[in-house]
Amino acid sequence: MIPRYSRPQMTSIWAPETRFRIWFEIEAHALDAMAELGIVPKSAADEVWAKGAFEVERIDAIEAEVKHDVIAFLTNVAEHVGPEARFLHQGMTSSDVLDTCLAVQLARASDLLIEDLDRLLEVLKRRAYEHKLTPTIGRSHGIHAEPVTFGLKLAFAYAEFDRCRARLVAAREEIATCAISGAVGTFANIDPRVEAHVAEKMGLTIEPISTQVIPRDRHAMFFATLGVIASSIERLATEVRHLQRTEVLEAEEYFSPGQKGSSAMPHKRNPVLTENLTGLARMVRGYVTPALENVALWHERDISHSSVERYIGPDATVTLDFALARLTGVIDKLVVYPDRMQKNLDRMGGLVHSQRVLLALTQAGASREDSYRLVQRNAMKVWESDGALSLLELLKADPEVSALLTTEQIEERFDLGYHLKHVDTIFGRVFGLDA
Amino acid sequence: MIPRYSRPQMTSIWAPETRFRIWFEIEAHALDAMAELGIVPKSAADEVWAKGAFEVERIDAIEAEVKHDVIAFLTNVAEHVGPEARFLHQGMTSSDVLDTCLAVQLARASDLLIEDLDRLLEVLKRRAYEHKLTPTIGRSHGIHAEPVTFGLKLAFAYAEFDRCRARLVAAREEIATCAISGAVGTFANIDPRVEAHVAEKMGLTIEPISTQVIPRDRHAMFFATLGVIASSIERLATEVRHLQRTEVLEAEEYFSPGQKGSSAMPHKRNPVLTENLTGLARMVRGYVTPALENVALWHERDISHSSVERYIGPDATVTLDFALARLTGVIDKLVVYPDRMQKNLDRMGGLVHSQRVLLALTQAGASREDSYRLVQRNAMKVWESDGALSLLELLKADPEVSALLTTEQIEERFDLGYHLKHVDTIFGRVFGLDA
Amino acid sequence: MIPRYSRPQMTSIWAPETRFRIWFEIEAHALDAMAELGIVPKSAADEVWAKGAFEVERIDAIEAEVKHDVIAFLTNVAEHVGPEARFLHQGMTSSDVLDTCLAVQLARASDLLIEDLDRLLEVLKRRAYEHKLTPTIGRSHGIHAEPVTFGLKLAFAYAEFDRCRARLVAAREEIATCAISGAVGTFANIDPRVEAHVAEKMGLTIEPISTQVIPRDRHAMFFATLGVIASSIERLATEVRHLQRTEVLEAEEYFSPGQKGSSAMPHKRNPVLTENLTGLARMVRGYVTPALENVALWHERDISHSSVERYIGPDATVTLDFALARLTGVIDKLVVYPDRMQKNLDRMGGLVHSQRVLLALTQAGASREDSYRLVQRNAMKVWESDGALSLLELLKADPEVSALLTTEQIEERFDLGYHLKHVDTIFGRVFGLDA
Amino acid sequence: MIPRYSRPQMTSIWAPETRFRIWFEIEAHALDAMAELGIVPKSAADEVWAKGAFEVERIDAIEAEVKHDVIAFLTNVAEHVGPEARFLHQGMTSSDVLDTCLAVQLARASDLLIEDLDRLLEVLKRRAYEHKLTPTIGRSHGIHAEPVTFGLKLAFAYAEFDRCRARLVAAREEIATCAISGAVGTFANIDPRVEAHVAEKMGLTIEPISTQVIPRDRHAMFFATLGVIASSIERLATEVRHLQRTEVLEAEEYFSPGQKGSSAMPHKRNPVLTENLTGLARMVRGYVTPALENVALWHERDISHSSVERYIGPDATVTLDFALARLTGVIDKLVVYPDRMQKNLDRMGGLVHSQRVLLALTQAGASREDSYRLVQRNAMKVWESDGALSLLELLKADPEVSALLTTEQIEERFDLGYHLKHVDTIFGRVFGLDA
Repeated sequence: MIPRYSRPQMTSIWAPETRFRIWFEIEAHALDAMAELGIVPKSAADEVWAKGAFEVERIDAIEAEVKHDVIAFLTNVAEHVGPEARFLHQGMTSSDVLDTCLAVQLARASDLLIEDLDRLLEVLKRRAYEHKLTPTIGRSHGIHAEPVTFGLKLAFAYAEFDRCRARLVAAREEIATCAISGAVGTFANIDPRVEAHVAEKMGLTIEPISTQVIPRDRHAMFFATLGVIASSIERLATEVRHLQRTEVLEAEEYFSPGQKGSSAMPHKRNPVLTENLTGLARMVRGYVTPALENVALWHERDISHSSVERYIGPDATVTLDFALARLTGVIDKLVVYPDRMQKNLDRMGGLVHSQRVLLALTQAGASREDSYRLVQRNAMKVWESDGALSLLELLKADPEVSALLTTEQIEERFDLGYHLKHVDTIFGRVFGLDA
Repeated sequence: MIPRYSRPQMTSIWAPETRFRIWFEIEAHALDAMAELGIVPKSAADEVWAKGAFEVERIDAIEAEVKHDVIAFLTNVAEHVGPEARFLHQGMTSSDVLDTCLAVQLARASDLLIEDLDRLLEVLKRRAYEHKLTPTIGRSHGIHAEPVTFGLKLAFAYAEFDRCRARLVAAREEIATCAISGAVGTFANIDPRVEAHVAEKMGLTIEPISTQVIPRDRHAMFFATLGVIASSIERLATEVRHLQRTEVLEAEEYFSPGQKGSSAMPHKRNPVLTENLTGLARMVRGYVTPALENVALWHERDISHSSVERYIGPDATVTLDFALARLTGVIDKLVVYPDRMQKNLDRMGGLVHSQRVLLALTQAGASREDSYRLVQRNAMKVWESDGALSLLELLKADPEVSALLTTEQIEERFDLGYHLKHVDTIFGRVFGLDA
Repeated sequence: MIPRYSRPQMTSIWAPETRFRIWFEIEAHALDAMAELGIVPKSAADEVWAKGAFEVERIDAIEAEVKHDVIAFLTNVAEHVGPEARFLHQGMTSSDVLDTCLAVQLARASDLLIEDLDRLLEVLKRRAYEHKLTPTIGRSHGIHAEPVTFGLKLAFAYAEFDRCRARLVAAREEIATCAISGAVGTFANIDPRVEAHVAEKMGLTIEPISTQVIPRDRHAMFFATLGVIASSIERLATEVRHLQRTEVLEAEEYFSPGQKGSSAMPHKRNPVLTENLTGLARMVRGYVTPALENVALWHERDISHSSVERYIGPDATVTLDFALARLTGVIDKLVVYPDRMQKNLDRMGGLVHSQRVLLALTQAGASREDSYRLVQRNAMKVWESDGALSLLELLKADPEVSALLTTEQIEERFDLGYHLKHVDTIFGRVFGLDA
Repeated sequence: MIPRYSRPQMTSIWAPETRFRIWFEIEAHALDAMAELGIVPKSAADEVWAKGAFEVERIDAIEAEVKHDVIAFLTNVAEHVGPEARFLHQGMTSSDVLDTCLAVQLARASDLLIEDLDRLLEVLKRRAYEHKLTPTIGRSHGIHAEPVTFGLKLAFAYAEFDRCRARLVAAREEIATCAISGAVGTFANIDPRVEAHVAEKMGLTIEPISTQVIPRDRHAMFFATLGVIASSIERLATEVRHLQRTEVLEAEEYFSPGQKGSSAMPHKRNPVLTENLTGLARMVRGYVTPALENVALWHERDISHSSVERYIGPDATVTLDFALARLTGVIDKLVVYPDRMQKNLDRMGGLVHSQRVLLALTQAGASREDSYRLVQRNAMKVWESDGALSLLELLKADPEVSALLTTEQIEERFDLGYHLKHVDTIFGRVFGLDA
């Protein structure tokens, strides 16, 4: 975790205090279930809930000696609870606590990330509607193609992050399982009903079959999903970076009055937030492969996954949380320049309408090849004039073209509204009936 | 695609013949819809279906000249159809064809992979029931832990691949969308109803909002899912490799009578299939990151994703198909040695029962720390004797232990059946009520 | 290997014919050495060289039966050589042949790649000198910064690919080792002098210590190096893609007269080659992780690396060879537009000189903060005018500025030549004394 | 950075205090050079060295306001130095400081890592000589092959880490460059001699051509090299994990008397350190791809690499430093069991000698195929007896074998010393003449 790329609510999920608190709850709920089943005295469970406490520093000190975190934790709790603490953890194995705790942490992290996505979606929707009919040039290969609207760009992002949300909900469901199944997952020393009770209390489902550990394909899927979301963040961030280029400048990250740009070039307003998001996306993607490599544990488990998860559990969720919030801020406050969009649209001398003319020629009876040739030869002249010549005027003056199309027919092909006629349809598909 | 790691049915999905056939169907269905809408003559659509044909070599030859695959294809089709072919592709853009075709190919590939998983699941279930109660030692960290059954190991794999199946079904749904939305996704020159018709005919859903292309987060999610499945393959393959080690030898890949092992060491039967699967898993995982990097296309699209997909579309699906089939074969014919499993179980002098003794001591009133100390000091003696001493006998002879537990109580703790009492429960969870 | 991204010379290195030919040479040279040492009859070696032959199809047929490629090969060779063939492969193990063959193939592939880099470097140097003093705007964050020359951009790429070349030479050296050390690398059944002889004949160094295999950290380093080179390709490709954007258009990929762009927009000239290179770079990078995962083979070897190398050996080298050649072609024929570069340089109303003014103010005694404020307030006006206002004029009219600097002093700060005065120095560093 | 996987010396390289100290030195040395060149007053440089100071908290506070770290730093330094501070940073750009600082940090980190490798090599060498002639079974595919010595295993690791050391030395050289070249690398406002002076003082070489930044292919190569080293760590760690398996138990991580294993199974001594190293290797490998993705910055630079480097700069070097030290400790104190190695060697009834018999039969005139058949049919019997039968006895009793070889000839083939005769040669190759 890098402090500058961290937000407190997500960070706190990964704090030692939180982790030990979850451990305590798992152990105490398990004790309740055992008491209910008559395996341990009810008084032990009551005592644990009443007196149970721990201190992070004390646990660390004990662990330094015994080199085992769960034993250190239980020893510390026993110092508070007294002799009844001996009933804690009976028939359980460390992983029962560790893996179920990780499930709780990842589920809580997912909840925050889902909220992040909701906020992003809300902002995307608002700004999409704001610019629903703001014309701008659509580009393929970085080259002007045909008109779109800025709202469509944002609606596209909305649809993409809405898919991300659905994927995250699915990944959360996968990850939120509880295993209290003992040393090799056979429930040899613990009743499966204990697991069911803890699962319910901790907001998890039971893991149908565990070894000592919860299977790591679940976690692999989870982190892979975060990697996909990060890639979608990179997509939108890259769009903003392109739009803010000096020569394009159709939109800009908000630049607060007090903020300094480059120390050397005071006029510069750099898209540093979206560039930063591009880098953060690389990191979250980088955590996918270690998570995939964690799946093939040996036999009923080895502990190689553990160090990986100490890194990527916090790093991936904290970074993604920060990135989603930053992206939301960028979109929320994005300064949009419709005038510049129009100016860019116009600069190609009408070339963006060439496709429509091509179709008109075909429909007027020209072969596909001839139509293409006629449009191309005029388009090339416009292109080489760097926008000084107008495609409309050239076409009207081309005898082969005017033999096929009237002036009105040609002019009609240069109508911008023509391109925007289905924006409502698309918004309806993306945002639902209220669009 | 490496021929030795390819199977014909999957390979054929990626053959040029198949691709062009799908292109043809997309174009022809689109023409039907346009005819229905009165945009083009119905006769054109009829003519295309009646006379439409193509030749792979001819398309290649034209493409070499025009350097554009879809134009080459359309030109070749027009050679067969005649002048009516000019109505084909009207208002469409190449990506409408290419991306919808890729969706069809990936959906078909998914169907094969789902069948592969079904076969694997069937085999895993059969063999799991066969060895439901075959005792074997459970190992954590590669070290003997407590008894499990070989059936549990396979049931665990079943549950894992069942999750893989569900993920693949979801990924298939994500990938199976149709976009016929024109140059920048605005339907400027094509009616959205054309898209709806083609989608239905090709077994796809409509893409709610496309740019020129279908958004690549869908594909990223698809290939990430394949990477997770590959990791699960590696897990089971690694298990088999461990079990076949000379010193363990609890199971072996089937070794056909005619098959030769090492050229140098004729006695060797190497787990070459599962080692091979380990390598194949690395490859399928390796395709995840390029797919993630494909998401952030520039503006309404650039074509950087295309070369990546020419590799990973076939390579990932063909390799995974082969790997699933190979794994199914390995499990189907796996030679299992229950005697050896029992022998390995016994070799540790009963140490695997130490956990139960520990619990018994705690329940008899000893503190957790004292119980641990008592078990550990006897266990260490057994360990150092390399199985020559028996934990049971040592415990019975330990006065501190016998002060807390009777001989019967100690002996009862060494009962293997104790560990297997919940196998039915677990099978029920994994395989359903009929377990 | 994707045919469209393959070139024949590199492809042929990976053809079965080539592989078996190398196998034959390794075996025959080994036999020579054994004959020299008196271990086998000299006549056997002579016979093998004289009659030795193989047929790919025959080997495949035998392998289908015995499921072992080296045995199949030897059997086929024996069919040609006769009984003397029994002396072949004595004391050797399959990996001796396979790994040494792979070393030869990777060394040959490296040689081609080094040639590719040499051609790219040559083209970069030529075009760098051609545009050594062609002014163009330097951009950070996609925003105009200060002037550079187009030659400097190419010189930068030259320096980068020159480093790539040095890395590849080092990687080639690492990979070009020969191991003929027997089943577990102990030379139990073969004299180390055989290895030395084969190494010399095949242009390799001896592997100081092998297990059964050549250690895979060598290969990991090799493929990691290819991944770095691919990333440098992506860097230069991305530069071209940016320069070709409609709004920038400072350079363009060569567009042959017959070539068609988009089927829908005939005026478009898309940077499809460099977009393609971006995708190819992703693939070559994607092969790095599988190569890294190949390092940790079990004990003296397992065969999991083999399938990985069947993919990435050809795929990484063939793709990189193609990509380097394509990039060389793009740079060689790149259409450069110096007029447009100048136009873009001018469009910001002189803002790019703000840094120099800032310095002048500081040197004239203003504090850093004051200088910054003075420049920034004028620069902001220019910025907001979209290039209509001139920074030079505004500064001259600003009383606080003119209190510190004379008109001449201000004007002198807007001299373009000032920025280019060290171009010679930099070219000298990059290209050597002849610059 | 995870505290439990961090060591203070490496961590301190990445502390804010260290970073700002390096910034200060870069700025102050640059000022010296400017004073020497007569660009700024010598008194300014003296003043800066004499009074220059900074406080991390103060810089953070200023940065929170101006949102620019280098400006914040300079402002804070100016608070100490007074008006002469205005000469600092003249003609420089932030990246001049940031990138040169990163070069210093990575060079220092490399020095620590090289020391780590030296210590590991020393320990490997000592233990390799200790067990130079300790026989143990060599395994391919996890299956017994032929005898090696434990010293050979360690010598193999020595050679591998010696290569890693050479690679790291090369990577350090690549990364240790200094750029003080201004806003777009043209030295427009700064004399190249300033760069040369700072480079010399900071122990770096000059960057021949920079844009605003030092080219990121250097860093990509650096982190790729760390990824290769991590993979070699995983290899040796995996070897130890295999050797410690219950059924193999030829070596064990040192288990301190006070250390507790599993809370549930007190007899267990788990290879937790090497499992941990396996996980750490995954993390260091995971940082390679983000570093590769950092290469393709836009034009003269964008800042997307920065966030990535804030993570992987510390994380990769700190983790690798920790991992190398941990691995060194594991090997240093590894408990080796020669008796168990011998026992395992013997357990296969002599099958490991089958290769030698095969050769003897061939040399006695049998065809390769016949020899193979004869050995295989006896070997299979031994194999199926689980070591109860002896290959030596079976061969002596096989009439077809005894028709070709005398009893003495057969027995001689079962001599262990035969396999170890070239150990000296190999040690000489690995450790040099003194071996």
